[in-house]
Amino acid sequence: MNTNRLKICEVGPRDGLQSIKSFLSTDQKIEWICGLYQIGFGEIEVGSFVSPKLLPQMADTGEVIRCSKELCGGLTVVALVPNYRGAELAFQSGADKITVPVSVSEAHSLANVRKTRPQMLQEICAIIQARDQFAPHVRVEIGLSTAFGCSISGPVSEKDVLCLGDALAELGVDEIGLSDTTGMANPAQVRRLFKALMSNLGPKAGAAHFHNTRGLGLANCLAAYDVGVRTFDSSHAGLGGCPYAPGASGNVVSEDLVYMFESMGIPTGIDLQGLIALRSLLKKYLPQEELYGMTPNVCQEPDRHNA
Amino acid sequence: MNTNRLKICEVGPRDGLQSIKSFLSTDQKIEWICGLYQIGFGEIEVGSFVSPKLLPQMADTGEVIRCSKELCGGLTVVALVPNYRGAELAFQSGADKITVPVSVSEAHSLANVRKTRPQMLQEICAIIQARDQFAPHVRVEIGLSTAFGCSISGPVSEKDVLCLGDALAELGVDEIGLSDTTGMANPAQVRRLFKALMSNLGPKAGAAHFHNTRGLGLANCLAAYDVGVRTFDSSHAGLGGCPYAPGASGNVVSEDLVYMFESMGIPTGIDLQGLIALRSLLKKYLPQEELYGMTPNVCQEPDRHNA
Repeated sequence: MNTNRLKICEVGPRDGLQSIKSFLSTDQKIEWICGLYQIGFGEIEVGSFVSPKLLPQMADTGEVIRCSKELCGGLTVVALVPNYRGAELAFQSGADKITVPVSVSEAHSLANVRKTRPQMLQEICAIIQARDQFAPHVRVEIGLSTAFGCSISGPVSEKDVLCLGDALAELGVDEIGLSDTTGMANPAQVRRLFKALMSNLGPKAGAAHFHNTRGLGLANCLAAYDVGVRTFDSSHAGLGGCPYAPGASGNVVSEDLVYMFESMGIPTGIDLQGLIALRSLLKKYLPQEELYGMTPNVCQEPDRHNA
Repeated sequence: MNTNRLKICEVGPRDGLQSIKSFLSTDQKIEWICGLYQIGFGEIEVGSFVSPKLLPQMADTGEVIRCSKELCGGLTVVALVPNYRGAELAFQSGADKITVPVSVSEAHSLANVRKTRPQMLQEICAIIQARDQFAPHVRVEIGLSTAFGCSISGPVSEKDVLCLGDALAELGVDEIGLSDTTGMANPAQVRRLFKALMSNLGPKAGAAHFHNTRGLGLANCLAAYDVGVRTFDSSHAGLGGCPYAPGASGNVVSEDLVYMFESMGIPTGIDLQGLIALRSLLKKYLPQEELYGMTPNVCQEPDRHNA
């Protein structure tokens, strides 16, 4: 059992904003990120280096990283990068960590990054070399997309997930996590796959990134925790609707996740009331977006007596 | 580990209807109950014997029981009864099983049934005697309300929960379950308390009844399953809003619960697509009510390859 402290990585400013229609200015993003930092998040995915033509909302990621580094001392500032060029930009901007999505499903890989899996491994190889040479302090994380199933090609072989994880560890990646890109994971599968990943990769086994598409987000987080996972991605107000599930929250809701762990007596380091209060900023800047989460409707401190 | 088959008891026609403003006619209730029966539910809580002045929606419970017995061969027809008088009516109507809420919290007991805990134990004693004499085939289940915390008096002692369970088992009750009346349970507590309950009561340890107030409904069901619980209450479309959480689903959503177990490879005996299709009846008859659940937005069969 992994006895490390629990870490929740807030992905709203990247995964959340990337999936909605509303637009935040750079200043608004910074205000949000600083708010998240102040209530205790130690790691925030602040943006991604993707084509500004495809995702204009992410065009200011370099600036967002620089401001986050300046204003949030000690924060691990993470950027998603889909390729070598993105990694270069992230290194130049001063990101502390990059996260690269690598699809286990070949069909999803082609759809998402227009590369085959072997091509993607070559890309990772180049990224690691550049990191080692120019930015040795930057951690490289891989999120294995479609690790629990692919909405294009269907079931994903667990052996494929684990083999890909092994190959990436060999290439020098620091952390390899599993992403339930399409919300298809179930708790039994989560336990089995993370257990095997941790047994294969030891401390290189990384974060659990679940979506709440079928309502199983928290149950899957619990299942992952049970087998020793201590790093979880989630999104403030569950921002990031899933295109496959209209009206359904995309990401696991940070508020509910923090509540769950705190109520179990597992410290998250995050001020839940502060996190709930910070929703007012989202209400102000994203009035068109639905904010998810059940805990904010109740607004009561977890009862540690019953933890 | 309990190796019994999983059983999901649908409580929408009682717990759901009791908590909403809309009204269903007897015919509409029967149509709904028959629909639930046809898609596989083996146990349905069809109504409660409470004062028609307080809950006019439940005034036809006797008739609903009679019709359910007539139309749904083999169905376990359950009625909630708060007292001896209710039990008598349930026995007369032909219910297969009665479920009596007994609060662990004295404050909640007084607020809910206007009886102290000792008075409630006397009531149970009288109910058991009447059952033994007049309706020996009827099972008596207790749901220990506020087992995980009370919104009036705060934390609830686990020792109190277990002692009350022991006392009720001594009185001749058949099943004793734990109810998270106010949605305060967390998975760690669920595991600890159900484990102790099962160790104390053996096969008399009963159902897990969770609310989704803080979004932890499915995670708590998973936790209960992990320690051997095999009977779960849930509500079609999550009907039954919790007054403490505006906009928050009250009961665990049957659709999501069925999806979770089926996706884990645990048979529920329930036709998920049929259950989702049956929401159209609720849309028709309860147009004012919000229907909960994430799985219905996706409408995809659980992928048993990954179970």
